This record gives sequence, C-alpha cells and structure tokens, in this order.
Amino acid sequence: MTQPFASLTAFRGLLADMPGMDRQAADDAASHNGQLTKPPASLGRLEELAIWYRGWRGGQRAEITAPQVIVFAGNHGVASRGVSAFPAEVTGQMVMNFQAGGAAVNQLARNAGAAMTVVPLDLDRPTADFTQEPALSEEDLCAALTAGWQAVDAAADLLVVGEMGIANTTSAAAIACALLGGDAADWTGRGTGVDDAALALKTEVVREGVARHGGQGDGLETLRRLGGRELAGMAGAMARARSLRIPVILDGFICCAAALCLQKTEGGALDHAVAGHLSTENGHARLLEAMGKTPLLQLGLRLGEASGATLAIPVLKGALACHAGMATFAQAGVSDG
Amino acid sequence: MTQPFASLTAFRGLLADMPGMDRQAADDAASHNGQLTKPPASLGRLEELAIWYRGWRGGQRAEITAPQVIVFAGNHGVASRGVSAFPAEVTGQMVMNFQAGGAAVNQLARNAGAAMTVVPLDLDRPTADFTQEPALSEEDLCAALTAGWQAVDAAADLLVVGEMGIANTTSAAAIACALLGGDAADWTGRGTGVDDAALALKTEVVREGVARHGGQGDGLETLRRLGGRELAGMAGAMARARSLRIPVILDGFICCAAALCLQKTEGGALDHAVAGHLSTENGHARLLEAMGKTPLLQLGLRLGEASGATLAIPVLKGALACHAGMATFAQAGVSDG
Repeated sequence: MTQPFASLTAFRGLLADMPGMDRQAADDAASHNGQLTKPPASLGRLEELAIWYRGWRGGQRAEITAPQVIVFAGNHGVASRGVSAFPAEVTGQMVMNFQAGGAAVNQLARNAGAAMTVVPLDLDRPTADFTQEPALSEEDLCAALTAGWQAVDAAADLLVVGEMGIANTTSAAAIACALLGGDAADWTGRGTGVDDAALALKTEVVREGVARHGGQGDGLETLRRLGGRELAGMAGAMARARSLRIPVILDGFICCAAALCLQKTEGGALDHAVAGHLSTENGHARLLEAMGKTPLLQLGLRLGEASGATLAIPVLKGALACHAGMATFAQAGVSDG
Repeated sequence: MTQPFASLTAFRGLLADMPGMDRQAADDAASHNGQLTKPPASLGRLEELAIWYRGWRGGQRAEITAPQVIVFAGNHGVASRGVSAFPAEVTGQMVMNFQAGGAAVNQLARNAGAAMTVVPLDLDRPTADFTQEPALSEEDLCAALTAGWQAVDAAADLLVVGEMGIANTTSAAAIACALLGGDAADWTGRGTGVDDAALALKTEVVREGVARHGGQGDGLETLRRLGGRELAGMAGAMARARSLRIPVILDGFICCAAALCLQKTEGGALDHAVAGHLSTENGHARLLEAMGKTPLLQLGLRLGEASGATLAIPVLKGALACHAGMATFAQAGVSDG
C-alpha cells in the first residue's frame, strides 16, 4: 500500500472529507424493520443498531461475516514514573501472548468469529515522558497513524480496535483531561490495579502533563503531545474504517481517548462507531458521556486489549441477524395487531 | 421417557431434593482464574460467570458447545378481556413462525450456536380466565410441568427458556403481585404495546385475579391459579435443568415470573440460573431485584420468546472461552506485577 498521507496536515484533510451515513439505506432499513414479526420497537437497541449499521454500509449486505479485531501495542516514557502495577516489559510479553493466542481477546475474538491482527509499534522506542516533552514527534505520530490506517482489512465488515501498553491509562487520562477539562483526578484511575499511593502519583503525573501540554484544544496535537503509538494506531484504523464505510465498536477508556482525538478534530468523525462497553476504569463513563455514546455492555471489565468491544460483537451480529433473517408479518401470516 | 412425577406433591419432592453447586469445582475454577494473563478481576463479571458455571457443571468440560433454547407457547383465558394489543390467534401463528425459522429468537439462536425447540402446549385449550376461577387444574399444571421437564435435552450444557402466549404479561404480573406484594400497577406493563385505556383495564384484571387467588404464599399453587401452560413449561424445564446440572439463563418478565414460582417453593431453586437481560416491561427490574438477580444485558428488549436470554448466550460462552483458553502467567512468560 502506498503512503496514505504524507503529513499530519494531509491526515486532517482526509478526516475532513470522509463519507457520511447513507440516508437512503438507513431509511430502507427502518422501513423493513417495521414489517418484522414482533411488536414495534420490542427488540429495543437491536433495531437501532441494525438501521445504523445498514446506513453506514450503504447498499452492502445486511450481515456481519468478517469482523476484524486489531490490537495495537506501544510503550510509554511515563511508565518509568511508576504509574503502573506492572513493569514496562509486560507490553512486549503480552504481544507475544496475543501472537500465541493466549490472551483474553484471542478467546473472545474466536467466540465472536472475528479475525485478529496484532500490531506492535516500535516497542523498543517508548514515547518521551510527557511531563518533560511531547510524547511523540509529528513524524512518529504520522507513522503510527499510518500503521493503523494500513492495518485495516478493506474486506472487513466490522472493526474493533484495542490496545496494550503499560502506562497507557495515564496517557488516556491526560488526553481526556486536556481535551475535556476538569481535574486530573476526575480522569485518573487504577488501570491494571495500582494502590492508593501509586494512584496519587499517577494523578500528579497526569496533572503535570496537562499543565505542560493542555489548552491546545486540538485533538491531533493533543494525541501527539500526550498520547502514544498504540493510541495513534487505533485512531488511524478508525479513520481508515470510516473511509471504507466499516462500522466500528469502541473498546474501553484508552480506545475512547484515542477516538476523542478524532472527534475533537472533526465533530462527526465517530458517527460510524458505537461504544462496546462501559469499563470500570475511572473516567470512562464521563468520557463516553462527553462523546455522546451509550455503551452496549456493562459487565465490569477493565482489561483493555479490545476485550469489551470484542465481547459486544455478537450483540451487533445478533441485531443484523434479526434484521436480515426475520419473517415479515405478511410472509409469516401473523396478524399485526 | 417415563412420567417423571405423578402429582404436584411429587414435583415438590423433586424440587426439595435437587443437587447443589459443586464447591470443589468452583474453588478449582477460582484458583485457575487467578493465574490467567490479566490483571486480577479485570474481566469483571466474566470471571464470576466462569466460576459459577464450572461449579454447577461439576467436573464437566469448561466450555459451552451445546446450548439449548426452548420456547413454550400457551393460550390464556384472560386474553378475552382485551388485555393485549394482539388477538389470541397470534400465539398459534407465532408458533408456526418459530417452526419455520422466521422469528427473532430463531436468528438469535443461530447467532449463538444454540439448538432450538418449540413446544406448543394445548393452544386450543386456553387457561380459564383467572378473574373467575383458577387458570389451571392440578392435572393440567402437572402436564405442563412434565412437558417442560421432558423438553430438556440431557446433553445440553446451557439452557434458555422463553415463551409465547398472548396475554401472558397479565398472568406474569398477577403472579409477581400475588407472591411479592405491592399494588397491581407496580407489576402491570404494556406488554406487546397496549395503550393507556387497555393498560388501565389490564391493571384492573391483574388486581381482580390477585384479589381472588393471592395470599396463598405458595409458588406452585400461585402458578396454577394465575399462570399458564407456557409458564409451567418453563418452570418444569428449569427444574429439569437443575436436576441435570445444566445452568440456565433467564429471559424477561414472564420467564422470571415462572422462575419466581420455583424460588418461592424452594429458596435455592434458581441458584443455577443467571438473569440474561433487563426487559423494559414494567415490573421486570423489581422482579429481578426481589429474586436477587443482576441482568447481564440491558438493551431495551421486551419481546419475550427467549430473545434477550439467547442474546446473552455469547457473553457466557465468552466467559468460558477466556477461562478455558487463556494462558497462565507462567505459561506465557508474562510478569505478574
């Protein structure tokens, strides 16, 4: 694949020129939905999901047969500040676990009938400590966005992106705080499970980072200064999915922080995405609310690595299966009230 | 299959003598769960579900490969009171739709990899109008419990039961009100979608039924007086699943009202069951709370016919897939913090 964009400015240009929902396809789907053998609206959110999905897919088949899960991994300079319960080498160890099929998301992807792609991004080159300088250069940000863009299978009919990166809830909290305001403590959580002392330190690290880099008001510049390669990879993949009219299921706090950087750049950039689940990570509920997204699942997960969104794939598949497979009142000879 | 019980008294005897959870299997599962490559408790409710499932299955395989969905159908004398938005003949029409594969639950069962069984119960013999007399004779109740008992596939490793029966939210509301107290209006909802006038009438019908038959305090006698054949079928199937150590996912308001009749008969009779989803039918949230069950999904469904519980099957499958398939820290060479 040739380089899709040569600069951050070119990426902005692509974001500003993305396809929208196909209103005719959505209207056709809503009309079909109204004829199916069930009381009106009795499938609740499944009905909305099916109409939304068909609108984004346009004239394409109303069925999900080729979902793709991509897990991006990156390392973070702030890990050296002691903000995680796990050492930084766990990022690379978990990449090997993903590649060997031993992580939670491998099982959940198989359970959902999804293909899985693992994309480690320069694990031997952690980002800079954002309390000292911007996490990434513009060149490095572009490279990670490009890696995300190129990881998407154009033949996929649904995309889930997730991440692995020790210290990346610190990065996500800083992004959310910088772009949405509030105190660092509103956005900082226990991540993999830090104790009270580490949480206090982590909150201070987030506060320092936001003090240094916040107030830009720009999604991509905030991603560059406070983010990480795996966050940029997710953002690039979500943008590529939009260009291909592939709907997206968002994962937890870190995935949503990456998505927020797109949404703050172009208001409608996430209209092709639904929230897969509500994580227990502090700040996720607030972040979803700010993004206008209602989660499909609330099961107390806080693992990242695309696990919650992948668990939600069968819900969306079920919605489409009902939409495409149910008989109409006329076909079934059922009295419609 | 020979008759499993010859009387309601014999059925009570079976309920009182059911197997409990295998504590050793649950302890082993909890121990295994603690070694998997994820931060402790980061899979949230999936971890509890896997441990619970393995406890109920005892030494059997920690995997769900043969879920069964059974939809029971019955007709109700109170339908003639105008309590539903649909005419009574829709029960039989929908049974044909289930058999032809055209209903929502057919698509959701296929999506979940589940086998589906449809059990119409004497559709040409509606129950009696419970505002006038008990809905069922003891003989008819026993026959419906037996039909449910016998519909369970002993080789299934997960059971979902659901129902179809015009006017059966009226029956379920009366059961819940009779067994849990409160006003008829607390339990009566719009069902398939009645308007305000029909809702007022329906509430009055529930009130009349409870006034005539309430205060028994006994689950099975309440099921006989205010229930219906499809509710009894579900109760019989849930009891049979317990005897076979097959875990159950509960569906919506009507399924839970049937389950409540078992739980009021034997306090632990539903310990092998989880709540699949929270329906928008008025009274379901209150009923789940009274039963001590937290729903897996909350997606605004109110269709019945096992749809919500069937949608939850992939969640439970995913929980077991993680439990059985994930690498341990030692296997994967991942530092555990």
